[in-house]
Amino acid sequence: MESNVLSLVSDHTSPGSRRTTIDIPVPARPLREAYFVSDSTGITAETLGSALLANFPGVHFRRHTIPFVDTPEGARNVVHDLHEAIRSGADPIVFATVKSPEIIGELAASGAVVIDLLGGHLRELEAALGSTASEQLGQYHGVGDIERYFARMRAVEYAIEHDDGQSMRALDIADVIIIAPSRCGKTPTTMYLALQYGLLVANYPLTDDDFPSDGLPATVAPYANRCFGLTTTPLRLSQVRHERRPSSTYASLAQCTLELRRAEDLYRRNRVPFLNSSTKSVEEMSAVIMQSMRLRS
Amino acid sequence: MESNVLSLVSDHTSPGSRRTTIDIPVPARPLREAYFVSDSTGITAETLGSALLANFPGVHFRRHTIPFVDTPEGARNVVHDLHEAIRSGADPIVFATVKSPEIIGELAASGAVVIDLLGGHLRELEAALGSTASEQLGQYHGVGDIERYFARMRAVEYAIEHDDGQSMRALDIADVIIIAPSRCGKTPTTMYLALQYGLLVANYPLTDDDFPSDGLPATVAPYANRCFGLTTTPLRLSQVRHERRPSSTYASLAQCTLELRRAEDLYRRNRVPFLNSSTKSVEEMSAVIMQSMRLRS
Repeated sequence: MESNVLSLVSDHTSPGSRRTTIDIPVPARPLREAYFVSDSTGITAETLGSALLANFPGVHFRRHTIPFVDTPEGARNVVHDLHEAIRSGADPIVFATVKSPEIIGELAASGAVVIDLLGGHLRELEAALGSTASEQLGQYHGVGDIERYFARMRAVEYAIEHDDGQSMRALDIADVIIIAPSRCGKTPTTMYLALQYGLLVANYPLTDDDFPSDGLPATVAPYANRCFGLTTTPLRLSQVRHERRPSSTYASLAQCTLELRRAEDLYRRNRVPFLNSSTKSVEEMSAVIMQSMRLRS
Repeated sequence: MESNVLSLVSDHTSPGSRRTTIDIPVPARPLREAYFVSDSTGITAETLGSALLANFPGVHFRRHTIPFVDTPEGARNVVHDLHEAIRSGADPIVFATVKSPEIIGELAASGAVVIDLLGGHLRELEAALGSTASEQLGQYHGVGDIERYFARMRAVEYAIEHDDGQSMRALDIADVIIIAPSRCGKTPTTMYLALQYGLLVANYPLTDDDFPSDGLPATVAPYANRCFGLTTTPLRLSQVRHERRPSSTYASLAQCTLELRRAEDLYRRNRVPFLNSSTKSVEEMSAVIMQSMRLRS
């Protein structure tokens, strides 16, 4: 195992101070080069490859994504990089989402470890379906899928128009209305649902004005069955709000605690399903909302 | 193979018309049930599973996504669904991104075909790295990854503020400025780059006002090296614009042809890299932009 050197420097700037450096050998985590190689965008190779690598916390990985490797020439460029890496003493690992068996073969012949995220599963599917995989079709992310493109474009524009209660023009066609106090994660979750699933998602901020009443705000009350609430922890909310307005009442722990308690009471009283966003990623929140609102086809 | 029935109906509403129905047996594509089962959001299982299924265009798949299957009880619920499907004569195929070997085992024991998108690759990685995969770590999409969450939130808010040239407040910190005529796909691409990669992306519409001049619009000219252009085909642009304003000059083929030609001239003259969005998905455009602007770490 290689070792790094940790330098302890004691540096007093007052006159007469001495500067001391002590070198202590520290065992470093081994470094491995991870390549995500795809004949399309590389997103699946990155996501699945990273999920696999996360199981080896003792190893440090340097990551490289190489998308659109769909020609022999593209493959040769990757092989060139792999040879360079091998020559410099690295032991590269390739995660490949590449359909062409020829390209996979070239990558494997480089001497790098190649983890083929598609090929083996394609053979399993052929066995299960009793038919041969088509070579032409099977593009990732459906190139030219106009309907899906239109749906996403409409959904993103709807989300922008209906972000943060800015417009209530077309609330009646919303698939979901996300309600929450400021900075609980409404906006990124809204955008993710729009982009990933083409859903029409509005979001509405709960403010102090909404709390003398026991019911939902008048604007969203007619659509109570499409509302979904977000909450978080007071500490996390205070952190996030401090980012926007440092040392404000708005960001104080007391104010955050109060707003979250009121919001959760409101959700419970009105039977609005809700979710604590503090330990969840945007993807996870979106998946929970889809499931809870039965929005999966 | 089952067969559907195609009904040919001849129905003249004029008095004295006769209504004729002819039933012709049509061979149907075989139907298979595809389950995407995940111990997390199900997004990777859906994406990779769908990419694999796309290689079998002769088969019709009914898709079901079941996220958050991470307990024996959750597994039993899925097995129950699989048994129901098998009993009704379907031959279900399960695409699983589930870490627990016990849960995979239960799914496989149901009698369904299980394609394990993680387990085999984890064994390959263990062999390549010479160490054992951790059971605890390796959560999908990094639960509680606060830094990434902040970055995405900031990026989405930046994208909303700087959508369609609405604000030019903080153009100097943009990672990319996407420029294009109206309806070429600026907004969804901007949002995707913000959400997926946490990049600060502004977008600016090219209008007739921008074309007497040979240079870039004054607002974005200082940041020419961060500009990326979009174009499309006149027919596609006309289609998309007709959706928004049917039968307008704005949507006419002549106007679309003119605007696209001027935009492409502008990109070329100012050495702005550009991309034709007409045959590309939002994911693909984003990947090309990342690569072209060298935004990958």
